[in-house]
Amino acid sequence: MSQEKGRVTIPTDIDVIQETLDLSKRWGADAVRDCDGTDFPVELKDVGLKVYSTYYTTRKDNAWAKANPDEIQQMYVMTPFYTAAGEALRIRLMKGLYPDMLTPNSRDDIRRWWEVIDRTTGEVVPTADWTYDEEAGEVEIKSVPFHDYTVSFLAYIMWDPVHMYNAVVNEWKDVEHQITFDVRQPKTHEYTMKRLRKFIEEHPYVNVLRFTTFFHQFTLVFDELAREKYVDWYGYSASVSPYILEQFEKEAGYKFRPEFIIDQGYYNNQYRIPSKEYKDFQAFQRREVAKIAREMVDICHECGREAMMFLGDHWIGTEPFMDEFKTIGLDAVVGSVGNGATLRLISDIEGVKYTEGRLLPYFFPDTFHEGGDPVKEAKTNWVTARRAILRKPIDRIGYGGYLKLANEFPDFVDYVESVCAEFRELYDNIKGTTPYCIKKVAVLNCWGKMRAWGNHMVHHAIYFKQNYSYAGIIEALSGAPFDVKFISFEDILEDKDILKDIDVIINVGDADTAQTGGEWWCNPVISSAIKEFVYNGGGIIGVGEPSGHQANGHFFQLANVFGVEEERDFTLGYDKYNWENHSHFITADSQERIDFGESRKYIYALENAQVLVSEDKEVKLAVNEFGKGRAVYISGLPYSFENSRLLYRAILWSTGEEENINKWFSTNYNVEVHAYIKNGKYCVVNNTYEPQSTTVYKGDGTGFDLDLEANQIIWYEI
Amino acid sequence: MSQEKGRVTIPTDIDVIQETLDLSKRWGADAVRDCDGTDFPVELKDVGLKVYSTYYTTRKDNAWAKANPDEIQQMYVMTPFYTAAGEALRIRLMKGLYPDMLTPNSRDDIRRWWEVIDRTTGEVVPTADWTYDEEAGEVEIKSVPFHDYTVSFLAYIMWDPVHMYNAVVNEWKDVEHQITFDVRQPKTHEYTMKRLRKFIEEHPYVNVLRFTTFFHQFTLVFDELAREKYVDWYGYSASVSPYILEQFEKEAGYKFRPEFIIDQGYYNNQYRIPSKEYKDFQAFQRREVAKIAREMVDICHECGREAMMFLGDHWIGTEPFMDEFKTIGLDAVVGSVGNGATLRLISDIEGVKYTEGRLLPYFFPDTFHEGGDPVKEAKTNWVTARRAILRKPIDRIGYGGYLKLANEFPDFVDYVESVCAEFRELYDNIKGTTPYCIKKVAVLNCWGKMRAWGNHMVHHAIYFKQNYSYAGIIEALSGAPFDVKFISFEDILEDKDILKDIDVIINVGDADTAQTGGEWWCNPVISSAIKEFVYNGGGIIGVGEPSGHQANGHFFQLANVFGVEEERDFTLGYDKYNWENHSHFITADSQERIDFGESRKYIYALENAQVLVSEDKEVKLAVNEFGKGRAVYISGLPYSFENSRLLYRAILWSTGEEENINKWFSTNYNVEVHAYIKNGKYCVVNNTYEPQSTTVYKGDGTGFDLDLEANQIIWYEI
Repeated sequence: MSQEKGRVTIPTDIDVIQETLDLSKRWGADAVRDCDGTDFPVELKDVGLKVYSTYYTTRKDNAWAKANPDEIQQMYVMTPFYTAAGEALRIRLMKGLYPDMLTPNSRDDIRRWWEVIDRTTGEVVPTADWTYDEEAGEVEIKSVPFHDYTVSFLAYIMWDPVHMYNAVVNEWKDVEHQITFDVRQPKTHEYTMKRLRKFIEEHPYVNVLRFTTFFHQFTLVFDELAREKYVDWYGYSASVSPYILEQFEKEAGYKFRPEFIIDQGYYNNQYRIPSKEYKDFQAFQRREVAKIAREMVDICHECGREAMMFLGDHWIGTEPFMDEFKTIGLDAVVGSVGNGATLRLISDIEGVKYTEGRLLPYFFPDTFHEGGDPVKEAKTNWVTARRAILRKPIDRIGYGGYLKLANEFPDFVDYVESVCAEFRELYDNIKGTTPYCIKKVAVLNCWGKMRAWGNHMVHHAIYFKQNYSYAGIIEALSGAPFDVKFISFEDILEDKDILKDIDVIINVGDADTAQTGGEWWCNPVISSAIKEFVYNGGGIIGVGEPSGHQANGHFFQLANVFGVEEERDFTLGYDKYNWENHSHFITADSQERIDFGESRKYIYALENAQVLVSEDKEVKLAVNEFGKGRAVYISGLPYSFENSRLLYRAILWSTGEEENINKWFSTNYNVEVHAYIKNGKYCVVNNTYEPQSTTVYKGDGTGFDLDLEANQIIWYEI
Repeated sequence: MSQEKGRVTIPTDIDVIQETLDLSKRWGADAVRDCDGTDFPVELKDVGLKVYSTYYTTRKDNAWAKANPDEIQQMYVMTPFYTAAGEALRIRLMKGLYPDMLTPNSRDDIRRWWEVIDRTTGEVVPTADWTYDEEAGEVEIKSVPFHDYTVSFLAYIMWDPVHMYNAVVNEWKDVEHQITFDVRQPKTHEYTMKRLRKFIEEHPYVNVLRFTTFFHQFTLVFDELAREKYVDWYGYSASVSPYILEQFEKEAGYKFRPEFIIDQGYYNNQYRIPSKEYKDFQAFQRREVAKIAREMVDICHECGREAMMFLGDHWIGTEPFMDEFKTIGLDAVVGSVGNGATLRLISDIEGVKYTEGRLLPYFFPDTFHEGGDPVKEAKTNWVTARRAILRKPIDRIGYGGYLKLANEFPDFVDYVESVCAEFRELYDNIKGTTPYCIKKVAVLNCWGKMRAWGNHMVHHAIYFKQNYSYAGIIEALSGAPFDVKFISFEDILEDKDILKDIDVIINVGDADTAQTGGEWWCNPVISSAIKEFVYNGGGIIGVGEPSGHQANGHFFQLANVFGVEEERDFTLGYDKYNWENHSHFITADSQERIDFGESRKYIYALENAQVLVSEDKEVKLAVNEFGKGRAVYISGLPYSFENSRLLYRAILWSTGEEENINKWFSTNYNVEVHAYIKNGKYCVVNNTYEPQSTTVYKGDGTGFDLDLEANQIIWYEI
């Protein structure tokens, strides 16, 4: 029997003291937390619950910010493109930006830190050829008629983007705009350490400081109507200041240019193939952030408190899969769980004592209102997360929001009770072991481990028409019985032997993006290493436009490996006869019509490839043999249980392991089997909200029929 | 009343003498012709009909070809890509090629004329690192493991591709393969002139030599199963030989490389942005072809015969819109009419006495069989062609095939009679004048006038899934009341003032192709000239991915002009709010759901653009103002009467001429109005096979209601 208490954090507030006690008992919670908009009731400080307190490192102290305006945080912003009609062009910097959020920084030398670029030629406009009219807020440029121009400038963050978001979404009235200050700068750095000590002193009952977060907000900008204008959950644009950049210049040994951050207005988003300068800057930031975060963690420890980091908001520079992260010395990381991939963003973190996942829904009025169905949302979230938890568990779960609201929904309280119990049982069964992995799979892109599990994620757990068909692969992997690595082209360049430890390589995304690699495929070391890997028996799966980059007679640089190519008009003159669909091991469990999502158009098969699905002269799914290896091409694969199965079979086929499919396997793709050999356990889990029947195969290939209730998870001894 | 005879050519044969006489009377034919597979009956030589005879310049003389194997025509061929698994790689040259059609040329120095390329690096493999095993037909390469290789080689054309095509399609048995010989080479050149004189002497009754054609076949290759493998109606691959290439080297002043023709295996097809070397080679070929063709034309004239060129088959180097063409001195050009665009390929030719269009269907058994409906095919062809004829008439029409077959279909004979009469009437009414043009429109691409009307055409009048939505624009223009020019980026570079004579620029096609321009848009002279043109009041219409090329923060280099951009993942972080559809002048005549064809995905509107049609967060149609000018973006526009009207309105709107729409205009888009001011005539034409009602507006804006019969054309005096 599993433990009846622990591993659960719940929110509290001054008006729900008794409810907190009651629910903590029912749910087995052993920790309570405050949230934005709630306060911790001191009455709960000695009831045996661990107390978390949010701590805002870079805001909630406008007095300091206003007294030290030179140390207010800054961000690089590029104006839109303007076409000059004559020999002078005026560009208003704040056009399209929310006026209260940003203020151009003309305190520092604008001729050093701003950049006016002729975007028609790509050349920097000499500083002598432009001036700033501060009163009008306009840059006037000596222009070449009909060239396009942009201004890249530094702006102070006068309203913290997360605070602004909360204020706008919750329609807070007359709230003072919290200014973001920069802990990296000397005065604020010193002040921050004192401020932290003071907070700890004043809150003796707080056991865990939940840093929300450290120093630099991911890129988030609002437009004139206070609507979101630009977001990049991984973006570094708001982590800059002349103070920081001068340090960077010294370390890097070359002159900083705003364009390193601005990147033509693309701000080095996760689809851009990262430049050397951007990677240098990221590495510099990670090191510097880790140093100062470490100071804060040390203070917590010195004062006998735990330090927990929220994975989000001002998290830039703390990427948990990078080496610098461990040096921070954190006790814990907590993050929001939107799906399986975001669960593993948290649970795969090493170097902390525990990880915690904040489950959905938040106890907020948007869900908890009359007629709302919080149970449905909770079920979806839990079942989605559970797939990933079964592969790599978080150590704790938790909730956020107003406990009072949750308490008004008895069904919800019941459901959460069952979730908490199920989580504890699950955790007990699998703790301390790694689940059985059928294959080692490596997702290959330009980011590697730095963006592990976050591929194709621009917003946290929000996907777009353009990328849900690719993110589906990552989501499927998050709960699949594979040992998943994320490797970069640079990793291969440094040591191509890393491929020896891999069974299947996956390259997924659009051509000429960081997700597939673009011009990296023109590096013979890379392309040869991959071809050699497959030729000698490795598996490879390409989704979308894998290895896509127009060069040397191909758009897919691995066209010969995948056996497919994309028609970019250049091969229209070639007749194409290979369109016939074949039944195959990979599609054995798929429905008549497979959902390939948005998928790429105009893919055709080369002569020797075998087409599994083509529709209207467009190949959606094809396989090819290359030497001793096998390649699978999929045009897109949105996440679903059915598609997850297709990917599973593709991985098995690509490694020539078709005959081993009936091991730790459920014939019904709505049901999955996970084995924990060391612990002598395995489970069978129904991922759907309906009962399911299946045949379960164990590791020795023997099977049995099984009926499961909706969502049911059943544990067995091996 | 129009003339009752003339302007019509019909086929004949030895078994249809009386039928020829009868039908020539009914149809008003004044000329007869032979075809492949028919013979001219000498009995008809003095019946008052002009006699055409096909003349094959480069084939139908195997005795000569076999006696002069060194002067058999050659073509450059590239093998597929092969990956080396080790340090030696063998490539069989003829793999994938029809064995009887081509024979590798090892007579000339293969180390000079062949090229082995490491396609992984793009570098040429030194000739010392490969050998040719003639017996095996294989090249052995000293390879770098896991690099890809191709061999570019010269091959003799041992079976003329057109002859082979006819033999395969018509299932001719035991036919001797006609070898293609090269009139450009010295012995064959001399022989050819004598052969021509001999033919003329032996055929005194022939009035017109119909050259089919001159010297070089467009690229056409068959695979091992005798299926078409590669085709490019504009391709120069089969116009090469060491003899010719050495001359080219001398003229160009630089060393020839096979890669100039091979082009990574893309063979410089019409979507490839042409290289300087390829354009140099084309110009050289045009000059040299014109010189020798001129000799043949002179012989015809010396012997009192006319010289007519067939626009197709061995037509490479004779591009009729280029300056060299006129120097050939031809009397006439005849070509096949597949649609409006191909009609204007013929009718827009200047420098000949007359042009002739071969209408469809051919009198062949594929259409003229029991149960066949040749009238339907003829109607479609005629109505399609008529739209273009009304803008720029051919001088004659004609038919091909077996007259006997046509004669068995009395309805068809009747219909052709009406077509011939209608054509003569039409010709009388519009001859000697140019029709009234509402606007001057320029289609801008990399080819300009060289490929006028042939844009997006790989096969003659055959389109693909990838390009029918673009070809629709060209087809619509072929019969629309505009003065249409085809200009190239080089034209603008040479003299940007050519834009002063233009009202609307159209850029249509996929990004990074010769049809839209690719990197040409990074030339500031080009982009500035176009922006200036629009800014000062010009109209611009972009279809598909106009100005598409990833650079300087944009994929559409004219994003600011069109007000739209394509999401290539790099701007996913930018929120997009401009999706609302607006009603507009441009779509006033369109149905609820417009057919945008394949169209491009992921187009979004910038802030100031006005979206006319967006579906599922993809903009299909949008307009934008830029300075005094206007831009229209269309994602694709397959040809239809409805879409033709949409384009018409887009052109009017883009030039700010909405208020003038009711001039020479029919409110029903199935009906068109063409005015011939100088001749004092105008016509109203029903393009459909059903009766139509409309309101017709004359040039003064006055209108009247009109009912038309199916296909009817009505002529009026102004």
